[in-house]
Amino acid sequence: MSTGIERESGSDPRFAEPYRALVRPEGARFIEVLDQRELPHAVVTKRVTDVDAATAAIRDMVVRGAPLIGAVGAYGLALALDADASDAALERAHAKLDAARPTAVNLRWALDRVLARVAPLPVSRRADAAWCEADAIRDEDVAINAAIGRYGLELLRALGGEGRAVDVMTHCNAGALATCGFGTATAPIFLAHDEGLPLHVIVSETRPRLQGANLTAWEMASRDIPHTLIVDSASGLLMRRGEVDIVIVGADRVAANGDVCNKIGTYDKALAAADNSIPFYVALPSPTIDWNAVSGDAIPIEARAMDEVLTIAGASASGERVAVAIAGRGTNARNFAFDVTPARLVTGYVTERGIARNAAELHALFADRGN
Amino acid sequence: MSTGIERESGSDPRFAEPYRALVRPEGARFIEVLDQRELPHAVVTKRVTDVDAATAAIRDMVVRGAPLIGAVGAYGLALALDADASDAALERAHAKLDAARPTAVNLRWALDRVLARVAPLPVSRRADAAWCEADAIRDEDVAINAAIGRYGLELLRALGGEGRAVDVMTHCNAGALATCGFGTATAPIFLAHDEGLPLHVIVSETRPRLQGANLTAWEMASRDIPHTLIVDSASGLLMRRGEVDIVIVGADRVAANGDVCNKIGTYDKALAAADNSIPFYVALPSPTIDWNAVSGDAIPIEARAMDEVLTIAGASASGERVAVAIAGRGTNARNFAFDVTPARLVTGYVTERGIARNAAELHALFADRGN
Repeated sequence: MSTGIERESGSDPRFAEPYRALVRPEGARFIEVLDQRELPHAVVTKRVTDVDAATAAIRDMVVRGAPLIGAVGAYGLALALDADASDAALERAHAKLDAARPTAVNLRWALDRVLARVAPLPVSRRADAAWCEADAIRDEDVAINAAIGRYGLELLRALGGEGRAVDVMTHCNAGALATCGFGTATAPIFLAHDEGLPLHVIVSETRPRLQGANLTAWEMASRDIPHTLIVDSASGLLMRRGEVDIVIVGADRVAANGDVCNKIGTYDKALAAADNSIPFYVALPSPTIDWNAVSGDAIPIEARAMDEVLTIAGASASGERVAVAIAGRGTNARNFAFDVTPARLVTGYVTERGIARNAAELHALFADRGN
Repeated sequence: MSTGIERESGSDPRFAEPYRALVRPEGARFIEVLDQRELPHAVVTKRVTDVDAATAAIRDMVVRGAPLIGAVGAYGLALALDADASDAALERAHAKLDAARPTAVNLRWALDRVLARVAPLPVSRRADAAWCEADAIRDEDVAINAAIGRYGLELLRALGGEGRAVDVMTHCNAGALATCGFGTATAPIFLAHDEGLPLHVIVSETRPRLQGANLTAWEMASRDIPHTLIVDSASGLLMRRGEVDIVIVGADRVAANGDVCNKIGTYDKALAAADNSIPFYVALPSPTIDWNAVSGDAIPIEARAMDEVLTIAGASASGERVAVAIAGRGTNARNFAFDVTPARLVTGYVTERGIARNAAELHALFADRGN
C-alpha cells in the first residue's frame, strides 16, 4: 500500500456540498477523495499526498469516472513536481500516472494538458503552475456540469407542478462521484432538489458492477433525495405503469450522428421509453462527443472479465465485504460494459451549451469546435 | 426440520435424464426431489416420505415452479393417506398442503383433483388411488411439455443449418426444474440438444432472484449444453450485434388477448427483439391461459419484499451461502415480480397443440376449452 494515502473514516460534509467527490482544501498541497470502493457501506476519505498515492487511487479504482480520473491525474502530476520538478521527474510521473488506467481518455488528456503548461517553465515555477492547471481542469469540469444541470433543470421544472414529485429514472452513475462536481445526469437532479422541486429518482442497479445501487443510490441517500432502487429489467414495467416522467442518463461517448455509447442497459431503457412515449435525455459534456465516429457502429464495445457477471460483491450481515458466486462452475459469461443507443431513440442531448434535439442541432451548438 | 426429508449429496443421474426434477422410483411410496435452494452450488436430493415433508418442501421452496409444486402437493396427499386414509386425515392433509404456498394456483388445483378422485372411495382404497392420480398429474405435465418441445423444436430446426449453432435466448427458469419434466421454454432446447442440433443458449441472470444464473444455467451446464450467462440488461446489445436468433420465454399467465405476464424483464426483451426483428416466442401449457382476463391490464402484478433487490444471495469463496447487501441503509427498493408483454410484441405462442401466431389462433387451437 502507498504511504501517501491516509485513511479516515466517517461522513465528511465537505464531500456532500456542493456535490464534490474531490476536495483540495484552501492552499493545501494535497487532495482528498472519497474511496468509492467502500461505498455505500462506509464513507472513507483518503488524503492523496504524493504521486504514488494518486497513481494507486486511479489504478485501484478508489476514484472512477472519466472526468474525475483526469483531475486526480492532473493533481498527481502537481504532487510529483512538489517533490522533484526536473524534466526527468516530470516525464517519469507522467508515464506512471498515464499507465494507471490505460483506456481512460480523459486521464491522458489531463496529463498532457498539465505537461504542456509546465514543461516550458523554469523548474522552480513548475509545481505552482501544475497546481493551478489542475485546479483549472477541476473547475472547468464543475462549470460544464453546472451548466448541464441548469439546462436539465428546465426540463424537470416543466414536468413538475401542483406539488407532485417528478419521477426521474437514471442508470449507472453519471453522478458527482464520476466527475469533479455535480455529475452530468445527476446535475439537473441536484439543482432541482436545491430549489425545492419535489423529485423522486428511480435508480436502476446497473449490473454487473452495480454502480446504480452502490453509488447513485448513495448519492441520493446522502443528500436526502427521495429515491427507489430497482433491478435493471424493471424499467420497462415502471414505464408501462406510468411511474416514470423522464429518463436522464450519461454517456461514455456520442457519435457524430447522435448514437450514444453508454453503460450496458441504456439501449433497453431507451426502447422502453420510446414504447411508452417517455422523454429520454442524454446528459453530456461536449468532450464526450466523438465527432470522428460516424455512428455508434464505429465505437468499439469493451468486453470485460466474466467474473464481474459470475460473482457479485456486497457487504455481509457483519459488514464484511464479500464476493458471492451466483452461477455454477460449468457456466461462463459474457460481459460487455457498454451498449449503443441509436439516435432515433434519444429525445434530446443536454450539453453545457443547451439542449439539442438531434445530431444536427448538436453540430450547430458546437459549430465552433476545433477553432 | 421435518424428519420426513432425508438429505443426500452428490450428482444424481436420475434427475438429469429425462429432464426431471421429481422422481418416484418404480413402486416406491415416496418421492425424491432436487433441493433447488442449493443450486447451482450443490446438487442435493431430498427424499420426501410423509405429508409434513411434502408441505415443508413446498413452503421452504425446496421445489418451485407452479407445475412442480402441484405435483409435489398431489404426492403429499398420497403420502398422508398412506399413514391415515380417514376423512378427517384427508381433510387435514389437504388443508396443510394447500396452506404451504397460498398463491400457487396449480397447488390448489392438484390437491382438489386428488381429493375429488379419492373422497368417494372406501378408506382402504384411497391411498393407492391417490398415488395413481399424482402419477397422472405428473405424466400429463410431462406430456404437455414434451409436446411444446416438439413444436418448438421445429422453430429451432428452421433456424439451424450448415452446422452453425442456433443462438437461443431465454429468461428466468421455465425449465425442467419448474415442472415435472422438460420445462416449457427449455423443452425445445432439450429436444434439439438430444437430436444433435448445434445450440448455444444465452441465459439472462434474472435479477432479483437470479433464477437464470442459479437454475437455468445449471440445467444447461449439467446437460453439457453450450450456454452463456449475461446480465439482464445486456439482451438489447446482443440482439443488436446479431448474436441472438430467437428468444423463447415461459409465461406465468397469458390473457385472452395474448398479453403475456411473465418474469420481470420479459417486456424489455420483447422490445429489443422487436427492434431487431428477432422472433420472440412464448412457450405455454394451455392451463396458463387465463381466458377470463381480457388483457394484461387485468392481471395483478405481485410486488415482493424489497430485500430481494437490496441483497443478493450466493456462495462465498469457501462455499458458504451468504447474502450480501448492495445498497446503503438510506435506500429502499421496489420489487415487482412480473411484467406484462403486449401481444403485439409476441411472434408466436408455443402450446401443446401447436404454435399460434396471435390470440385469434390461440383461441382457435383451444376452441373446445370448457367442454
